[in-house]
Amino acid sequence: MPLVRVTNFAVSLDGFGAGEPQSLESPFGHAGMKLHQWRFDSWRDGAPDGIDALYGRQYDVGFGAEIMGAHKFGPPGWQDDPDWRGWWGEDPPFHTPTYVLTHHPRPPMEMEGGTTFHFVDASPEEALELARAAAGDLDVRIGGGATTVRTFVAADLVDHLHVPIVPVVLTRGTQLWEGLEGIEERFHIESVVAPSGVIHLSLTRRR
Amino acid sequence: MPLVRVTNFAVSLDGFGAGEPQSLESPFGHAGMKLHQWRFDSWRDGAPDGIDALYGRQYDVGFGAEIMGAHKFGPPGWQDDPDWRGWWGEDPPFHTPTYVLTHHPRPPMEMEGGTTFHFVDASPEEALELARAAAGDLDVRIGGGATTVRTFVAADLVDHLHVPIVPVVLTRGTQLWEGLEGIEERFHIESVVAPSGVIHLSLTRRR
Repeated sequence: MPLVRVTNFAVSLDGFGAGEPQSLESPFGHAGMKLHQWRFDSWRDGAPDGIDALYGRQYDVGFGAEIMGAHKFGPPGWQDDPDWRGWWGEDPPFHTPTYVLTHHPRPPMEMEGGTTFHFVDASPEEALELARAAAGDLDVRIGGGATTVRTFVAADLVDHLHVPIVPVVLTRGTQLWEGLEGIEERFHIESVVAPSGVIHLSLTRRR
Repeated sequence: MPLVRVTNFAVSLDGFGAGEPQSLESPFGHAGMKLHQWRFDSWRDGAPDGIDALYGRQYDVGFGAEIMGAHKFGPPGWQDDPDWRGWWGEDPPFHTPTYVLTHHPRPPMEMEGGTTFHFVDASPEEALELARAAAGDLDVRIGGGATTVRTFVAADLVDHLHVPIVPVVLTRGTQLWEGLEGIEERFHIESVVAPSGVIHLSLTRRR
């Protein structure tokens, strides 16, 4: 049975998945690259093939579709720019059908490398139905941002989350844990600290 | 040189040091004992003498005074009850002079076991001066709650913090990290996960 998973969705010690304000110049607001540097570090030539690399690689394994929120696809206002094609250039790192939740749908956008963006004005359940159909035997990734992840978790649609906690404090931005009081009763939570200092949380839905 | 330290100040994954509302019946609000159960577990007969126990024991070692906020001393309104003597009975677990920050000072209260409560209407700096003088060659503990801890950290008065992160989500209560944006630049942060699932953070001020 294919799963619905979140992987490598990094947050700060205070639970923010991005800073503010987000813009074309600063996709993560005042957080800059703080939440993501560990991953780039793990890709460097000669980087240790350790816990960070292991978790990082899960991103590419076993997914047949992604769902993302409108804020992940572009800076505020991208909906008004017919030429905006996402942050990632012509060959985005998703390599699957990718469903962008937006109240302003537009025609699908076929990119290189297997990514096709579909723009859907849909509930989480409806979007997941589309993504599951596209993914076939493979899993669906809920790609973020924080609002999208916690909406899907609150609706009990997610089987597994990998949440790297980066030891920084942001104090503002988009909050992952909001509305998820008592998540520990629904998910088994396991953690490990990488030598980089990143704390990898693995949340698995209890059956 | 004696240090100013915070030990065993537990928070949730989303950074809350206590839930809400706090009352005589529910000192930690809706958090109940969730943030503290690991410590009681580590005290049980036959409990492993592992990481939780090791960190837990730091609480008692090397302190000559404590400073706490008014909310730690009693439930809302304790200032109006002349008979209130704290949560901890006649032999509180501090065993040192203990400075309670309050806008409603009262005479010192000598308890059993070495604890004397002093009620002071003072700035963090002034309170620390009193506590340092009382502690002599020993360290001063900033005992909580979250508001008091972050006030002292923001004023750059704290040398070391031990913050156990308990894998639960509270979504509301008193927040430890508020106002501490960029604390990672001022403190070295090291973490370890105990088999209980508690993530022990150790923050050491950079010199």
